[in-house]
Amino acid sequence: MDVAPLDPVRERAILDATLELLSEMGYDRMSVDQIAKRARASKATIYRRWAGKPELVVDVICNRFDMDTPRPRDTGSLRGDLAELVRELCGTAERKHTLIMGLSSTLVSNQELARALRAHMPSRDLSGVEALLERAGGRGEPARSADTARLAAVAEALVWHRLIFVGPPLDDAFVAEAADDVLLPLVRAWAEAPSGRS
Amino acid sequence: MDVAPLDPVRERAILDATLELLSEMGYDRMSVDQIAKRARASKATIYRRWAGKPELVVDVICNRFDMDTPRPRDTGSLRGDLAELVRELCGTAERKHTLIMGLSSTLVSNQELARALRAHMPSRDLSGVEALLERAGGRGEPARSADTARLAAVAEALVWHRLIFVGPPLDDAFVAEAADDVLLPLVRAWAEAPSGRS
Repeated sequence: MDVAPLDPVRERAILDATLELLSEMGYDRMSVDQIAKRARASKATIYRRWAGKPELVVDVICNRFDMDTPRPRDTGSLRGDLAELVRELCGTAERKHTLIMGLSSTLVSNQELARALRAHMPSRDLSGVEALLERAGGRGEPARSADTARLAAVAEALVWHRLIFVGPPLDDAFVAEAADDVLLPLVRAWAEAPSGRS
Repeated sequence: MDVAPLDPVRERAILDATLELLSEMGYDRMSVDQIAKRARASKATIYRRWAGKPELVVDVICNRFDMDTPRPRDTGSLRGDLAELVRELCGTAERKHTLIMGLSSTLVSNQELARALRAHMPSRDLSGVEALLERAGGRGEPARSADTARLAAVAEALVWHRLIFVGPPLDDAFVAEAADDVLLPLVRAWAEAPSGRS
């Protein structure tokens, strides 16, 4: 029998196989059978850990590449930390661009994969972004940790928009613009009018 | 001989052919020869109007589908107009999602197409967004027409991010959130500190 489903080596082999097959044949043509064969695992092992193909692919997208865990370092100022956040998201986006774009048309036509990704979004690990806002609050800068999710969403939106419509490189000028012109004014506005509604 | 290159019927036939071939075979495999044959036009006609394949495709992406010309109507308030802007961008994004996503991986690997799209971005028709900011200024709301380009970029970024990572539908709740929590505070912040730098 296979080893326990959470054995990290086995889990990694299964996620690697999923990514390889995804790149080779696309989401629709790939089956759990093929993933099991490629990873030298049993289907039972896979199903003990993941509900099915959509959940496996969401795991590959979101966790396998640290997409979910931006951890901007403490630069000593909110402005500097926001620039670090943008820089980290740029790195992730540049690494995962092809994978996400390849899946994106699948997301539109495949409702089960879209649902699995949607279900995952609220549970993303944004503790690094929350810590950024808490550090700023601790320094007396106007910033509220309650704004973690929307800060992460806007920052990620800017990075992906730039990558898709303007293309790489995501350079220092872009990072500065995103931090100074968008994220910093927003964090301040949210702190001043918590609901965001006027 | 062919009719003059700017004859709208002929131009439309060429753009239609480009879009069809793009969907059928992808950017890399498609040639200007094939576009000419499909559109029953000569290559000379095509080259009188467009510098080459990249420029043709950029025209298809940006102009053929009104991507560039959001024209939010006057709702009587900045908040309402911003919601209209988001709603229009949602419509465009939902219509063009498959096309853009299909091209996106090409953009990464194909530098000539990326350059053509980049060259086009600054010349996009954003007069509808500018009019929105001017109307707000005219009503005495804090808003500056100088912020047209960055307002359009942030609004578009929010819409595409949502579509790619969360998926359709882009509903009223999303429109309200984008307008109230992001665009309205940003337009105000920019009007108060024009440079955006702190």
